[in-house]
Amino acid sequence: MELDEALKKLSELELKMYAYGAASSSLYLDSVTVAPRDTAEGRGIALGALAKEEHALFACRETGELLDYLDSQKDRLEFKDKRRTEELKLSYDKISKIPADEYSEYVMAVNEASDVWHKAKEQNDFALFMPYLEKLVDYNRRFAGYYDSTKAPYDALLNEYERGVTMEYLDGFFAALRESIVPLIHKISQKEQPDTSFLHKKYPTEAQRRFSGYLMEVLGLDRGHCGIGETEHPFTLNFNNKDVRITTHYYENDIASSMYSVIHEGGHAKYELDISDDLQYTCLAGGVSMGIHESQSRFYENIIGRSLPFIKAIYPEMLSIFPEQLEGVGAEAFYRAVNKAEPSLIRTEADELTYPLHIMVRYEIEKKLISGTLEIKDVPEEWNRLYKEYLGIDVPDDRQGCLQDSHWSGGNFGYFPSYALGSAYGAQMLSKMQEDNDIWTGIEKGDLTAVSDWLKEKIHKYGSLLTPSEVLKNACGEFDPGFYTKYLTEKYSRLYGL
Amino acid sequence: MELDEALKKLSELELKMYAYGAASSSLYLDSVTVAPRDTAEGRGIALGALAKEEHALFACRETGELLDYLDSQKDRLEFKDKRRTEELKLSYDKISKIPADEYSEYVMAVNEASDVWHKAKEQNDFALFMPYLEKLVDYNRRFAGYYDSTKAPYDALLNEYERGVTMEYLDGFFAALRESIVPLIHKISQKEQPDTSFLHKKYPTEAQRRFSGYLMEVLGLDRGHCGIGETEHPFTLNFNNKDVRITTHYYENDIASSMYSVIHEGGHAKYELDISDDLQYTCLAGGVSMGIHESQSRFYENIIGRSLPFIKAIYPEMLSIFPEQLEGVGAEAFYRAVNKAEPSLIRTEADELTYPLHIMVRYEIEKKLISGTLEIKDVPEEWNRLYKEYLGIDVPDDRQGCLQDSHWSGGNFGYFPSYALGSAYGAQMLSKMQEDNDIWTGIEKGDLTAVSDWLKEKIHKYGSLLTPSEVLKNACGEFDPGFYTKYLTEKYSRLYGL
Repeated sequence: MELDEALKKLSELELKMYAYGAASSSLYLDSVTVAPRDTAEGRGIALGALAKEEHALFACRETGELLDYLDSQKDRLEFKDKRRTEELKLSYDKISKIPADEYSEYVMAVNEASDVWHKAKEQNDFALFMPYLEKLVDYNRRFAGYYDSTKAPYDALLNEYERGVTMEYLDGFFAALRESIVPLIHKISQKEQPDTSFLHKKYPTEAQRRFSGYLMEVLGLDRGHCGIGETEHPFTLNFNNKDVRITTHYYENDIASSMYSVIHEGGHAKYELDISDDLQYTCLAGGVSMGIHESQSRFYENIIGRSLPFIKAIYPEMLSIFPEQLEGVGAEAFYRAVNKAEPSLIRTEADELTYPLHIMVRYEIEKKLISGTLEIKDVPEEWNRLYKEYLGIDVPDDRQGCLQDSHWSGGNFGYFPSYALGSAYGAQMLSKMQEDNDIWTGIEKGDLTAVSDWLKEKIHKYGSLLTPSEVLKNACGEFDPGFYTKYLTEKYSRLYGL
Repeated sequence: MELDEALKKLSELELKMYAYGAASSSLYLDSVTVAPRDTAEGRGIALGALAKEEHALFACRETGELLDYLDSQKDRLEFKDKRRTEELKLSYDKISKIPADEYSEYVMAVNEASDVWHKAKEQNDFALFMPYLEKLVDYNRRFAGYYDSTKAPYDALLNEYERGVTMEYLDGFFAALRESIVPLIHKISQKEQPDTSFLHKKYPTEAQRRFSGYLMEVLGLDRGHCGIGETEHPFTLNFNNKDVRITTHYYENDIASSMYSVIHEGGHAKYELDISDDLQYTCLAGGVSMGIHESQSRFYENIIGRSLPFIKAIYPEMLSIFPEQLEGVGAEAFYRAVNKAEPSLIRTEADELTYPLHIMVRYEIEKKLISGTLEIKDVPEEWNRLYKEYLGIDVPDDRQGCLQDSHWSGGNFGYFPSYALGSAYGAQMLSKMQEDNDIWTGIEKGDLTAVSDWLKEKIHKYGSLLTPSEVLKNACGEFDPGFYTKYLTEKYSRLYGL
């Protein structure tokens, strides 16, 4: 084989994989937006067959030989092509171990489980979801063995979402976090809480939609390339760097919910939209890891979106869209309201300070589920016990408890820790960004370009050209969770006058 | 090869083709509903790659051999399997002649042309669309040669939409139609026209949405399996017999537009939803031809939906949704208004009587375009000339002229005549249906089951198990366009007291 020919084959392979990815994304997007209620079966059959085709395309001997050849020529490869080879080889070594039928059945099981989870959550019926959860846990345990049989299964899964992260590392990370967060929460509980009642006045959906449009504009999201839809659970979906979709959910009695969903998903979207054109339709075309991805979403949501300068900047427009609801409320009061720190039930609605505790609950349960030391039927009890222990609150029902998140029904075990890691990465990025530039003067005027430009240049444009730890190191040095605890301590001490 | 093994392979092949179909349908649905404006390029690349994969899967030697083997064993095959073999062999013989790259490029060209056509129509700019139209005409002319090089190219294309239909046949059919329609239109032009002003009061979109829901209920469309969306141009898209989508477009100054779109698309949807379970995921799982499909949509739209008994049945609900708009208007006046016959500009808004003339204009232009006797640049002029000749009206601009329909931008040349054929089939079905049952007593009470059951049993359930002419013959005898002209003459003579 000639090198040029091999690289051409590689590009063809990646293009096909892009197309399969776009197909399943589109079917997924449809399923959570407009698809009629009772249509999961036929869609599952399509998704299963596509997964099988994709698996057959990728996990075949020909691909293995192509990647081996390219790997043998790596000294002659440009940096980008070397990275494409490395990344695909890593995937190949994992995926090719999963039998095609098993993979296709898994994709169908996920489609079915998602459908049942929606119903189970709606009906507050964990028993309905249980057999599906069991199935997905089993699959993931088996897949962990395919991914890396030398590791503990949960470590192998964690590695899928954030390369190199282990339970040993996370145990330490979370312990350190708890050590600084719990005393803060305790101190805050003895302080007066800000008024948040105005957040829960009636905010009509139509007006909230206009507000979302404005927020996207402030974030610098081009509506020609970034759509916004409405789903039960907000998410970001990327087809390519010219086509990204975010979704939100409007609650008429809660302005903050959709507002911060839009900013959070907007952060994900900015990452994907900023990735270099020359990586498109290759395996390096997406964000590099869940941790880095969540660092971007949570950076925009919390560090920027919940900052006083940002709220001051957008407040005039908010007042014009919601004049009655915000009458007599100033930017400062709004800022304090959306930063009220208080243990609560729902992760996605949690404040920045208590949020990591929600993650820790899920992390502890996943560890046990995947190692097999927790039975599926005992998940609700364990969930409720941990919420009591970590957050000091009672969980009234499974809908607001272990059925609240979509991740498990999507087959994602090991994903949750990325949120906490991402938040910690974000704090470190902020520190470096502030060293490099004055960002806050612009933000206060509603001009986020200093932030956007920094993130684009230091992180976004690379897509998966660098590994997660390289991205981080390149942008702001070796990872140090101390930036995060310091950030939280300073922010909440200031907010509550501790 | 053993027969059982061959049939298993056939099912696997069909299942994959179903999956590719679902993937492109989903990407298409997205593109016309929620996709951001500037995202056509990346989607086109995905669609092109998927088309190439599907082409490679189907148009390969292995498939050819499988089909040849099954064909050689046809005496041992059950009827259904014989039909599957026949249909796939027909497609194979055509598709395998199209080079994979050409097919993939065509799919990308269609995606691009659709995008440009939307803009061209919006901007009333035929010149913008011209090069794309030219490209698609060229492709179709070449494809016609692949399909059947012994036929005139346009005959080969017509055959794709309604098997066996030729220009010779259509010339006669349309001439006969004109002969009975034109004098009717002339007579009507001398009569007093009904008041239609109340159709154009303000009908808020939200109320129209509720009305659509009601109409779907009356038609017996299960919302768990049939979704409704909003697009510039209404259409029906079927994933499988448990998942069909219809779309409509709401104009606040026109209640009839969306009302009859919903009923029309609802007719298509009923066909697809009624197809037997045992045909699902095979090549026989869809409606058999465009002509038969349009017979169903236009049957519901015109024969039922524009009948007095139907309007009487739904009128109380209409009055409760639109009390002010319809104040003082009775069911009878509404019936007369939605049957007003008058030459007009827009096909989809045309009344039942003048509608076939709109089709004839397109048919004449397509004949010339595909044979190469009409240059692309001369399409607007020829369009306007024919509208003057056939309908006696002046076309003010291309937006309301040759840019109005999406068909050409979708690469569909030879589709339009199916609408007229379908209308004619429908009149013949009505005649037989009335012989078999009293349908009108039920309809007047809002009970369409006698109609639905007849159509399901006689037509829908067969999917593509029978050929179009077999379906028709089985349901109501050999095709005779006389039923249609008789139906039109009677209906309009009664309406206008001719």
